[in-house]
Amino acid sequence: MKRNRVWIYPLILIAFVLVMNTGCKKNSTQQKDSNTTSISSDPLPSWNDTEHKKSIINFVEKVTKKDSPDFVPVAERIATFDNDGTLWPEKPMYFQMVFTFDRIKAMAPNHPEWKTKQPFKAVLEDDIKTVLESGAESIDNLVMTVSADYTTEEFSKIVKDWIDTAKYHGTGKLYTDMVFQPMLELLTYLRNNGFKTYIVSGGTSDFMRPWAEKVYGIPPEQTIGTSFKMKFEMRDGKPVIVQLPEIFLLDDKANKPIGIYQYIGRRPIASFGNSDGDLQMMQWTMGGSGLRFALFVHHTDAEREYAYDRESPLWLFDKALDEANAKGWTVVDMKKDWKIIYSYEKK
Amino acid sequence: MKRNRVWIYPLILIAFVLVMNTGCKKNSTQQKDSNTTSISSDPLPSWNDTEHKKSIINFVEKVTKKDSPDFVPVAERIATFDNDGTLWPEKPMYFQMVFTFDRIKAMAPNHPEWKTKQPFKAVLEDDIKTVLESGAESIDNLVMTVSADYTTEEFSKIVKDWIDTAKYHGTGKLYTDMVFQPMLELLTYLRNNGFKTYIVSGGTSDFMRPWAEKVYGIPPEQTIGTSFKMKFEMRDGKPVIVQLPEIFLLDDKANKPIGIYQYIGRRPIASFGNSDGDLQMMQWTMGGSGLRFALFVHHTDAEREYAYDRESPLWLFDKALDEANAKGWTVVDMKKDWKIIYSYEKK
Repeated sequence: MKRNRVWIYPLILIAFVLVMNTGCKKNSTQQKDSNTTSISSDPLPSWNDTEHKKSIINFVEKVTKKDSPDFVPVAERIATFDNDGTLWPEKPMYFQMVFTFDRIKAMAPNHPEWKTKQPFKAVLEDDIKTVLESGAESIDNLVMTVSADYTTEEFSKIVKDWIDTAKYHGTGKLYTDMVFQPMLELLTYLRNNGFKTYIVSGGTSDFMRPWAEKVYGIPPEQTIGTSFKMKFEMRDGKPVIVQLPEIFLLDDKANKPIGIYQYIGRRPIASFGNSDGDLQMMQWTMGGSGLRFALFVHHTDAEREYAYDRESPLWLFDKALDEANAKGWTVVDMKKDWKIIYSYEKK
Repeated sequence: MKRNRVWIYPLILIAFVLVMNTGCKKNSTQQKDSNTTSISSDPLPSWNDTEHKKSIINFVEKVTKKDSPDFVPVAERIATFDNDGTLWPEKPMYFQMVFTFDRIKAMAPNHPEWKTKQPFKAVLEDDIKTVLESGAESIDNLVMTVSADYTTEEFSKIVKDWIDTAKYHGTGKLYTDMVFQPMLELLTYLRNNGFKTYIVSGGTSDFMRPWAEKVYGIPPEQTIGTSFKMKFEMRDGKPVIVQLPEIFLLDDKANKPIGIYQYIGRRPIASFGNSDGDLQMMQWTMGGSGLRFALFVHHTDAEREYAYDRESPLWLFDKALDEANAKGWTVVDMKKDWKIIYSYEKK
């Protein structure tokens, strides 16, 4: 696959975000127990009783009832979920980018040359502006650097250690505490109805797999992300797989349906995303025969999370929003549709 | 990924095989009902009661019993199977190669230029010698040609139509009737014990997925093969995925463990193969911690199937046989270990 650097473009606007960020991370003040009366019968207790909740339940009931004209056999109940912005936030910065910068800093003692070599020097000095100005190729190199030459098992441990300790900016919460509770319920609801749930993300699979099973209930074999080429070799007499600094699958935009086909070999009957990067996945999902479902999470809640769509030059929800509206796909309004945002609000 | 033509080298020796083939396809004369007395308690009725059958059952019992020191949680019970030569025959020619030549002939009416253009002309005239002499690149082109520019759904239908009608040379049997009954029982036995069974094959996934679920009980998302690059596009206003004549994953030798890691993200605890092309998959499987299992099918039965190993320049079982012997991995002797070979012998 031709080397493509689109997936690191997000970094280009980090400086912008750091300056312009107007979102806030206040805990929701909504009551905790609003759903206790119906918890056993309501599969989506963190969703308000709006048309969108009804459309989800309506779809699931139609494809799972044996006598329904829309019945879909269990084997074909494939549901694919974007990760960043769909299952957890993507602002003020993609979490994997935070990880990448943290790793550069952690690896620096073994790379004294980085003290004077750009863009490493700028990362080490938190000079984000210079990092961004160094251009796509050098930023690309940064991202590759943090996984290259590690065995898959070594890198998995590095990710696990980071995700178990790193905190989301200013909240004191682990990144894995920041997952969207309504989406967790949706994942569980679908699985309870025979769906196989997949992640299909522009983030890398080696970054998601170490924790996605515990946090989302999605095992490594159902976590498809951007991935690097690899080599098989013996190290100290042991067979290992080592990461290379070259893209294998760039899992974004038109490559999302392609990645789904390469890895799953079936067309999903339901897909969930939040941005223009998910549009082709939705088009392919909805292009199949029989009843299908497409849902976008629209970030409309500047108070509890963030509000952005067409004006966000990076996390763009523009063409996909138009197409969703034109075709009647479900567009969740986070502010109106979700009782709580984060799982920790439930406690 | 750099374009690599190793995967079509098999073709180079087809002529040799067609001349030298000494195997035969006689139906087994063994009694059909030798296993009826113990069918309910014996998970592997088509296996003779040899050490190899015992080693399989011993492994499965050890990793599945809760109080066993070798217990493995269900989620980690990943078993990977080579296809050609492991689940069905690979002689006298890889079945996918037969399919490829059949497709060239079927497509010829829409390509009048093939009548005079090599190596197509030679294929159409059954002049295998000339096809082989045309070299790796032109043969490569033949194989690519039969899937390129088809949508994934169109190609799936073409494979399905072929596999439902094409007959294994001289037997009058469908190719899918030629699967190894003892291996089918092994697949079922593992799945009944919580294993997730995968195919990991040098053959292409688009050739295996249309029938592997019905024949092996292995769904598309657990069928990993060589694959081509693809593009996403609109055809007649419908979103489709179209195959390109360029390799995405060449799923053989060292690329087998890499393919497993890319697609599954876990190290298998058991692997099954039959040739040097499976060696690295076995090494990686056995290189993990805890109890693990590697099994090679040794083609030792010239009467009921074929007998070949070190002398077979194409279907080589040489280095892998040495390593299996040295490390005490299981090497199944088809002649001694299998009561019957093909599923139809059961009837």
